[in-house]
Parts: sequence; structure tokens; C-alpha cells
Amino acid sequence: MKLRIDLNSDLGESFGSYTMGRDEEILEYVSSANIACGYHAGDHNVMQKTVRAAVNKGVGLGAHPGLPDLLGFGRRYIAMEPEDVFNLTLYQVGALAAFATAEGAKLQHVKPHGALFHMASKEEAIAEAIAGAVAAVDKGLILFGLAGSLLVKAGRKEGLPVAEEVFADRTYLPDGTLTPRTLPDAFIHDPGEAAARVVRMLNEGKVRAVDGTDIELRADTVCVHGDDPKAVAFVRHLCGAFEAEGIDVKRVGES
Amino acid sequence: MKLRIDLNSDLGESFGSYTMGRDEEILEYVSSANIACGYHAGDHNVMQKTVRAAVNKGVGLGAHPGLPDLLGFGRRYIAMEPEDVFNLTLYQVGALAAFATAEGAKLQHVKPHGALFHMASKEEAIAEAIAGAVAAVDKGLILFGLAGSLLVKAGRKEGLPVAEEVFADRTYLPDGTLTPRTLPDAFIHDPGEAAARVVRMLNEGKVRAVDGTDIELRADTVCVHGDDPKAVAFVRHLCGAFEAEGIDVKRVGES
Amino acid sequence: MKLRIDLNSDLGESFGSYTMGRDEEILEYVSSANIACGYHAGDHNVMQKTVRAAVNKGVGLGAHPGLPDLLGFGRRYIAMEPEDVFNLTLYQVGALAAFATAEGAKLQHVKPHGALFHMASKEEAIAEAIAGAVAAVDKGLILFGLAGSLLVKAGRKEGLPVAEEVFADRTYLPDGTLTPRTLPDAFIHDPGEAAARVVRMLNEGKVRAVDGTDIELRADTVCVHGDDPKAVAFVRHLCGAFEAEGIDVKRVGES
Amino acid sequence: MKLRIDLNSDLGESFGSYTMGRDEEILEYVSSANIACGYHAGDHNVMQKTVRAAVNKGVGLGAHPGLPDLLGFGRRYIAMEPEDVFNLTLYQVGALAAFATAEGAKLQHVKPHGALFHMASKEEAIAEAIAGAVAAVDKGLILFGLAGSLLVKAGRKEGLPVAEEVFADRTYLPDGTLTPRTLPDAFIHDPGEAAARVVRMLNEGKVRAVDGTDIELRADTVCVHGDDPKAVAFVRHLCGAFEAEGIDVKRVGES
Repeated sequence: MKLRIDLNSDLGESFGSYTMGRDEEILEYVSSANIACGYHAGDHNVMQKTVRAAVNKGVGLGAHPGLPDLLGFGRRYIAMEPEDVFNLTLYQVGALAAFATAEGAKLQHVKPHGALFHMASKEEAIAEAIAGAVAAVDKGLILFGLAGSLLVKAGRKEGLPVAEEVFADRTYLPDGTLTPRTLPDAFIHDPGEAAARVVRMLNEGKVRAVDGTDIELRADTVCVHGDDPKAVAFVRHLCGAFEAEGIDVKRVGES
Repeated sequence: MKLRIDLNSDLGESFGSYTMGRDEEILEYVSSANIACGYHAGDHNVMQKTVRAAVNKGVGLGAHPGLPDLLGFGRRYIAMEPEDVFNLTLYQVGALAAFATAEGAKLQHVKPHGALFHMASKEEAIAEAIAGAVAAVDKGLILFGLAGSLLVKAGRKEGLPVAEEVFADRTYLPDGTLTPRTLPDAFIHDPGEAAARVVRMLNEGKVRAVDGTDIELRADTVCVHGDDPKAVAFVRHLCGAFEAEGIDVKRVGES
Repeated sequence: MKLRIDLNSDLGESFGSYTMGRDEEILEYVSSANIACGYHAGDHNVMQKTVRAAVNKGVGLGAHPGLPDLLGFGRRYIAMEPEDVFNLTLYQVGALAAFATAEGAKLQHVKPHGALFHMASKEEAIAEAIAGAVAAVDKGLILFGLAGSLLVKAGRKEGLPVAEEVFADRTYLPDGTLTPRTLPDAFIHDPGEAAARVVRMLNEGKVRAVDGTDIELRADTVCVHGDDPKAVAFVRHLCGAFEAEGIDVKRVGES
Repeated sequence: MKLRIDLNSDLGESFGSYTMGRDEEILEYVSSANIACGYHAGDHNVMQKTVRAAVNKGVGLGAHPGLPDLLGFGRRYIAMEPEDVFNLTLYQVGALAAFATAEGAKLQHVKPHGALFHMASKEEAIAEAIAGAVAAVDKGLILFGLAGSLLVKAGRKEGLPVAEEVFADRTYLPDGTLTPRTLPDAFIHDPGEAAARVVRMLNEGKVRAVDGTDIELRADTVCVHGDDPKAVAFVRHLCGAFEAEGIDVKRVGES
């Protein structure tokens, strides 16, 4: 049986007169789009354009809810009550779903952004709030979470389909979390090495952590970036490597 | 056949630590709730509580999209492109719909707020943008618009069910628009007089304008307020007058 | 020599159409006003009115900078870089200073709000960022900080005049910090007891913590609240008790 | 006597993770910087960096207050009360002044941004609100306004020093206002033509309008842009043309 992988990327992060990301280029490669919903990035006009562009490319539509912090791009930890997280997830998923409906499409998945993603990986109450909100909107939505994280567990507990996410351009700590961006060895810059790591995840269910030990993980979807020409080139290389290994890039919701 | 009328009121206008309106009290009287969606007022937590409270009372759920202007409470004119209005309507209706879904309910209607309501009454492109967005989400949603306005026309053109709205505590100019709040005779303070005016609207399809002439209008729903104890008392009086006249208060979506 | 104390209160916390606090009433009692600067509460119109009202009453003007979180009223912890805190303090103090200048007055003090106040009490880098920003604007501004806290130390290190703040209606933990609002014994509701505690602070430099031990502290200014009629009555009682004890209420900047 | 001109440009328009403008490059050419103050663009961190960079280059510091509309970049008309405009100007000028003070510098000028600039050109009450706010902060601040506009008049009436502003890359209507950006002939793309027009303004006090008639105007400062490499090249050309004509570029506040 042929191996397959989903490639997801954050899109629709522009805001008003501010442009961010090379959405058109990255849409050529990815199979799933995590679309910002107006809290940490994006606005209603950007959402409309991004949903339409993703639908036109046959890319799976995902809501990418974030913390209400445009200034910090949703990357700063904010102390939030689980009930607050439940409601902000509901709000943002609902808003994006309307744009999907207007394009005759449906949401495929939900993936929390930035600090919310990290909080959901480690704090059970936050993970359950997100999973609960997604389930409250639509039990068929696929929840994206860091492979092996509490979010993945919370999604399964809610009966949601879940996609375990791995990172091609990031390294891992021995506990399975990502090496923080502030540390020197957080990133993998060589696409060949990145591809080899993902291929091993798919074949063996393992990745080497920064301390040299192996971590077991399941890779349903790989997160890639389209911030600049270099990032886009990285993704192109990655796709080339997958093709060479006989791995199909398919969106996670596709049968 | 018995006369009937829908009573609608703006709810869920609190924000964070700020409280506005006497929502619990007014929910005892109205049949339809226009719930703020986070642009001019309201936040995701307030929306959740308001939707739940309205559902518990059997009150019809309405999205109340406004301009992105919390500081001005959505009451200031902002020059907006129709496409922008289309998208901000879609966004806010979608967000509120998710809270309805989470409570096992459905949205009944959409009514634009404040400056957006006024713009939609008089500017065809704005009216069509709102009606188009509502239709893009769900063709079964009832569009609330000022009786006789361009918004009502745009809704019919889109094939949406439409409710023509009249105001019990506001006076009318000869062209059928509301007397601006800044003018001295904009408000009707006597609930008896207000009730008599609505009863005449229902029986004769007419209301007297500030210049003494009669305007023809259709009254499907009456807008009332719950800002303070006096406003709530006004609504109680109005309901008493309706009962005395044999007029049923029923939500517009109820058969 | 007669004992004296400064009474400070948070003012100008309304926003747009949202009203908060009984500013006019509380201005009758306090000697120093901590005026919100538009980040956690307040807006440019509210700031203008509040500064004017405080000047008219001869109450000392203070900037009350907060975290950029209107939705959370600046009470939620947000992970912030010290440089960010330096800049947001500078911004908010500068904005309020302009309103003081327009009224022919000058700022007397700066007191951080909510989560920023708590962060500044315990995190040295945050304390130094705030003190540094205040000193960068005007070395004559008095820095208000929790009695015995790192903020007080940072202010002294910067060469700023400092006022150590105590709370009349809050209890203390043995380490000198306030008992968190979420705990049952966080508040003192009896104004007589509150006054007696402050009198002891002034006379003996001590307060009893929740575990029964005594903490040493210095009380230059007492924080009081004007959120509702009960809070205002509490302050009136407190002032009565001070008068009975022969303690003068004077703003901290007054010689 | 040698002719002189001030070159001003909008700077500090980035926000959080969003970058806008080529500030470093344009600072090599201009003599005055209009620095965004956090309402239509900019944030406290960007303001700090921009003020420091401008001070290091000896460029005159200007506050660039805008409407509270980050989403619309302050370019959309918003119906505002003059009192509101007075207060938002005060707020933003005060905030920026604090960053100047922290760098040991002083503000040189104030120039309203976008829709506020246009409103101030044509609406007397708005013009007077802005001029009044600037005068309330510091009577020595130079007010920048469209040459011949109501803002220039309001500034003179307040006793403020005034700089009449002309545009090198924009065309004029016969009434002396700028041709709206939405019209095809709004922009001048050839830097040689732009320079020749400015030279004529300086020598003759005249510019040719789009209908071929001559308008009289006074040119104290020329607005240029640094949005992209082409815009920067335009400014470089303009400076070359000024040098060739023996015109000195000097900031307006320099004697």
C-alpha cells in the first residue's frame, strides 16, 4: 500500500493593508489550509479571499483559531479560562464556516494557532475546551493536534476524527514537544534532512529528538510554512522528496 | 383572525467586564433577540450566555451584525465598500450561528445594527451586500429591515423571507425613515401612545409622521429596548396594551 | 506630628458607550486618581473628562497603564517581553500626560494596573521596565507599587520618588502579596476593620497576614474602590475613621 | 538666497508581526518623519524604534495621528464629533511625545493621517479640533496641513507655526485638493516631472491642476513615500533633481 501524507500550512494571515505570507505559491503544494479567523491574524475580507483560493485549488479548509492578540500574533501565552477558550474557538470556527458555506464548501478541520496550540498540547482543560467546541459545531470536523499531545487525546475522547501533526522544519525535545523557537537548534533548514525525517516518521513511526533519543509518534499531517521564498522552496523540495519516495500528498479528509 | 406581532430587542451588548442592558428582564417580554456579534458590542462569552438564555426562553435567535467600531458602539457612519459589508456580515452571522448550533438551536433572523442598519436602509449596494451575505449562509434566515426600506427590497430580491420592522418608541419622518436621535421629537416616551401607534400600524398599515402626514408601512416586528428599568417598564406596558387589544406577541419565525 | 495618608482609586475605566465606576462620587474622597489610559480600559474621551474632573477636585493625576487587553480588563497574565512593557508604559503615560497638559496640570504619579501590577511586584525585569519608562518620561513622577515589592525597589533604583501602596479592603499572604481575588478570604468587607488595619500600618508599620503572622510594611497610599454604592460607602466610612484617629488624607505629592 | 524645502514621509506604519514601508531607506532622504501613533498603524514598539532611528538620522519627529481604524489603515471616512477628534489627537501626540522625550528629543510637528487629513482639509470643525489639540499640548509644534486648506487656516488661528504641504507624486484638482486615489490620473510616476512641479511651486508658488489651470499654493514641505523600492527610487531621483536645481532639503523646524 502506498504511503500518504497531508501537508498543512497557515494561510490567510494578512490583515487590512498588511500583507503576510505567500499564500498563492504555497497553495500549489499543500493539501490542507489552516485559515486565520480574525483573532490573531486575518480579517473578514482576507478570510473570504483565502477560502475561495483554497477551494479553487481543492485544498482542505481548516479553521485556525487563535488567542485575541493581533499585536502578539497569537504567539504570547495569555492566561485564559477553559470556558473562554471554548467560546473563542466556537466563535472563530463558526465565522470561517460561513465563508466556506458561501463558497459551496465545508470545513475539513480545525487547528489551534500559536500559543493556543501550545497550551492545548500541555493543558488538559484547554485541550478539552477546544475539542468540546469543535464537537459542538460539527462532530465530523477533523481536529489537528501535535502528535501525541493532550489535544489529540481530548479530540479522541470527544469522538472527533483526529490528525496527528508533525513538523518537518522543527526539532523535537525528548518529551515529544517542539524545541522552542528561541533555542538555536529549533529549526531544520535542510529540506532533504526534513524530508528524510518525515519519511522515517511514516515508515517507522519515529523521530530523533535533540538529545539523540528516538520518540515514537504518528504522522498524519505535516506542517509547512510559506512565509518567504526560502520557505516556499523548502516545501517544493519536500514535495519532490516525497514523490521520490513514492509518498502521496493527499488531504487528510480525502478517502 | 387574530392580529399578531413580533417584538424584537437588541441583546448581548455587554463586553468583557462591561455590562450593558437588562437582558434577563427584557427576555421575559420579547419574541426575537438581536444578538451582538463582537464587532460593535458583545464578545464570544457574552454571545454564548445570551444565546443560551434566549433558547431557554424560546425566544427567536437573531444575528445582529454591526460595523467594526466598539468605541462608537457601531453607531458612527464608516465609509465601507459593499464587498467589505458582505464579508463582515458573513463573518458575524457565522460566528453567532456556531453558538446556536452548540445549544442545539438554529438562527431565526439577521438584523443589521446601528449605522449599518441606517446605511442598509438608504444605500442599495449596502442593502444588497447584507442580503447577499445572509442568503449565502442560509436562504431560510429571515432578514429584518426598516419597513419600506431598501434592505427589505434587497432581501426580497434575494428570495429571503423578510420581516418589516417598525419602532414603537421612535417617530418617523415623512419619507419613512426614523427621526434622527439627535432631534428633540425623535422619541415617544408614553407607552400608551406607542402601543396605539403600533395597533394602528397593524390594523391600518399606517403611522403618522412628525409633519402630521400619514405613511403607509407594514409591521411584522416591533423593535423595543431594555437599556434601563424605564425601558423595561415601557415594554411591559406595551405588552399589556397588545393583550388588551387582542394582539398576540409571537416570534416572526413561528407558524 | 500628625499622621497622613494618601487615598488612591482607579478612575476613568469607562469605554465608549460602556460606563464603569462611580467616578464623581469617589472623587469626593480620594486624594490621588489612577486614570486608565486606553489599553485595559478608558478611551481618549473618557481620559479627557476624568482628568478634568480630577483637576477640578484637586486630586493628584496618575497614569494607570495596563496590558493591551480590553476584553480581559487587563487582569489576565500575558507573557510580555520587558522591552514591550517599557514601551507600553511610555505610550500610556505619554498619552495621559497630554490630557494633563491640556488642563494646565501635571501628572503626579504612575501606577500599573491589574496583571501588570502583579507582574511588576514579582518579576524584576518587568518592574525595571516600568520604572525605567517612568524615569524616561519624567524623573519627578511618583511610582506607586505594592508595599515591599520589586516595583518599589526598581523605582528607588531608578531614583524615582516612590509611594508604597497598601490595600484597605484586601488581605495579605505571609509573603506580603495580596491574597488572590479567587480565594474566599481575599476581601475585607467591614470598613471599621479595614480602617483599624490601616491605622496600625501607619502607627506600627505592620499588618496581620491571613495566617495570623505580622508583616512589616510601609503605607504611603491606600488603594480604595468606587465600583458601586457599597464601595463608595466603604470609602466614606474609612475616611470617617481616619478623621476620628486624627489622620489627614492628603495626596502623596502634596507637601 | 538659496531655496529650501522640507521632505516628509509617513513612517513607523508596521504593526506587531506585520511589516510595512522601507523606513530605513527612506530615512536617508527625508528631513521630517510622520510617525504613526497606534490608531491607524504603528504600535508602541514600532514607535520606539522609529523615533530612535529618526533621531539618529537627525530627521524631524512628527506625530501622525489617525482615525481609530487599523483594519482600514485610517483611510476610511468615519463620522466623528470634533470633540472626539480633539481628544484622539491629544492622545496620539502625547503618546509619541513620550518616545521623543525618552530619546532626549522633542517633537517637531504634527500631521494628521489619511481620512483625518482629508476631513481636516475640508471640515472647519475638524480642522479646529486638531489645531486646538496641538496647541493644547505645545504651542511650538508645527502643524502640517494641505497647502491652502482649512487645517492650515485653523493652525494660524491657533497661533501655531504652520507648514503648507504639497505632494510631489499626486495631482491636484482645480480647487487645490488632491485628485482622489481612485481616479486614473491621481499619481505622477515620473520623478523628473514631479521634481519640476515642486521646483515651480517653490519658484512661482504655482502648480498646474488636472484641468490645465494654475493653482496658487505655498510649498513648505513635500510629502513623499517609501512603500516599496520604486517609491524609494522616486525619492532619490527627486533629491537629485533638487540638488541640481540648488534647492536644499532641510527640515522645516531647522533655522
